Amino acid sequence: MSEKILQDINNISKHLIHKTNNNFIISMFNLIKSGKMLRSKLILSIATPNEETLKLCSIIELIQSASLLHDDVIDESTLRRNAPSINALFDNKASIMLGDVLYSSAFYELTSLPEAVAKSVSKSVISLSSGEILDVELAKSLNSNLESYLKMIELKSASLIAASSESAALLEGLDHKAHYEYGLNLGIAFQIIDDILDITQDEKTLGKPSMNDFTQGKTTLPYIYFYHESEANAKLLESLFAKKLDSLQKEMLKKSMEKSLLKAKNLALEYANKATNLARKLNNEKLDSIVKAMIERDF
Amino acid sequence: MSEKILQDINNISKHLIHKTNNNFIISMFNLIKSGKMLRSKLILSIATPNEETLKLCSIIELIQSASLLHDDVIDESTLRRNAPSINALFDNKASIMLGDVLYSSAFYELTSLPEAVAKSVSKSVISLSSGEILDVELAKSLNSNLESYLKMIELKSASLIAASSESAALLEGLDHKAHYEYGLNLGIAFQIIDDILDITQDEKTLGKPSMNDFTQGKTTLPYIYFYHESEANAKLLESLFAKKLDSLQKEMLKKSMEKSLLKAKNLALEYANKATNLARKLNNEKLDSIVKAMIERDF
Repeated sequence: MSEKILQDINNISKHLIHKTNNNFIISMFNLIKSGKMLRSKLILSIATPNEETLKLCSIIELIQSASLLHDDVIDESTLRRNAPSINALFDNKASIMLGDVLYSSAFYELTSLPEAVAKSVSKSVISLSSGEILDVELAKSLNSNLESYLKMIELKSASLIAASSESAALLEGLDHKAHYEYGLNLGIAFQIIDDILDITQDEKTLGKPSMNDFTQGKTTLPYIYFYHESEANAKLLESLFAKKLDSLQKEMLKKSMEKSLLKAKNLALEYANKATNLARKLNNEKLDSIVKAMIERDF
Repeated sequence: MSEKILQDINNISKHLIHKTNNNFIISMFNLIKSGKMLRSKLILSIATPNEETLKLCSIIELIQSASLLHDDVIDESTLRRNAPSINALFDNKASIMLGDVLYSSAFYELTSLPEAVAKSVSKSVISLSSGEILDVELAKSLNSNLESYLKMIELKSASLIAASSESAALLEGLDHKAHYEYGLNLGIAFQIIDDILDITQDEKTLGKPSMNDFTQGKTTLPYIYFYHESEANAKLLESLFAKKLDSLQKEMLKKSMEKSLLKAKNLALEYANKATNLARKLNNEKLDSIVKAMIERDF
């Protein structure tokens, strides 16, 4: 994957936002730090990097950025990718409004792509926003239900990754259903790994505070496993639920969760294996490598 | 216009939101009070009320509701259509997230309509959200610039009305450009009248606090005219800018603005006349009546 293509995608996005002709919008957009562009890399591993494919990448990245702009307001996060978030730099209003501009720009561009692609992507945004609601709902009390957690991450995280993979296959005339399944399994594994890293990595590596999920009342997979390990664990989690932990408490909790973290990693590997098998069935080595890199990453 | 058709449109919207399968989303959505459905009435005055037309109406109403959900968070409004707003009933998070679900559901359905319709509607949402940003920007200091105000209401209010009119014409195979122009002029007149009513009507009639615009730092057309009438007026407005006014101050300000209110009404009539002329050119009496009713309304 050449860095130049990723830069081209960012330039397409910049061009789209420039069309609003509003300097405040443009300058705020320029302050958003580019992420790892995982979804673009996924698309480029499936479809020929022509104009249509690059447009799809730009649309997906705009949607991803829009959802993060709204997430940061909802989760009251002030740090994103090691930089102050837009809601921290400006205010919640700005972040909501810029998110709406990004969403609508993405949807407008989507109307130029084939109908099946437009349907796949827009449907995934319904899932994504419903998933965000479920995420907030689950955090209202201590959630120890595995199925609810898996449903939520499928909606909130995996659906857009699945739609990216499916849309790339649609553009390339490949088996879109198998590519959707690949993306869904990759996405679920991706989110479980993210939730593990939130516990095991430090603030500098994460680009945001560590153990942020639990502080926000979000009991991700390792916590759910830990909760069910013993009654004492359940009581410990309940006593710490949605509280701000100091670094000693964090260290102790992390230590005692070793087994649950391993168990969570194993479930991520199960989903990753499903994705790998699909990648092999689809004869796409790049998709195989994406799964490997995703599992092995430490941020 | 039969009430039954408007009820059918609301039922289509309910059905779309039910597809999320999330009870929290569905119950919040059911709490949103239906408005006057001006945009649906406009569409039904142009296009045959078949399945496609009703779907378009539902999409436009969902977009309108989504934008109000986000507006109420941005403007910190707690009252909407004489009822507590979703951000007041729940919280800002809920209002942002429900807005995103409504937007994405509308965009997903839009992919089933003809491409030209999808483009017109999605483009208007870029305008609408850019207009919201401009609205907030202008309210940061006392705006006395007429052009900025007109640009802002064109983006924030008129563009979706213009897209509704244009899309209905596209479905019916009529002159879509003329219908767009009609909707744009109607929309600008509509918003000026709204801004006048914000000053002249009481809270009960408005369904929200009176003189709310000025309290929020929004100098709408009557204030801009008043500002330029004399240096004393300019100083008065500057001294009251973005402050909470008591009922006596409101009454006095309203009284002294009589001339500016009349002048604003006259500009609304100019735009309304342009719309009326287009309605006559298009030989559509219903569109003529819509302009009249819109101008004569008192809420």
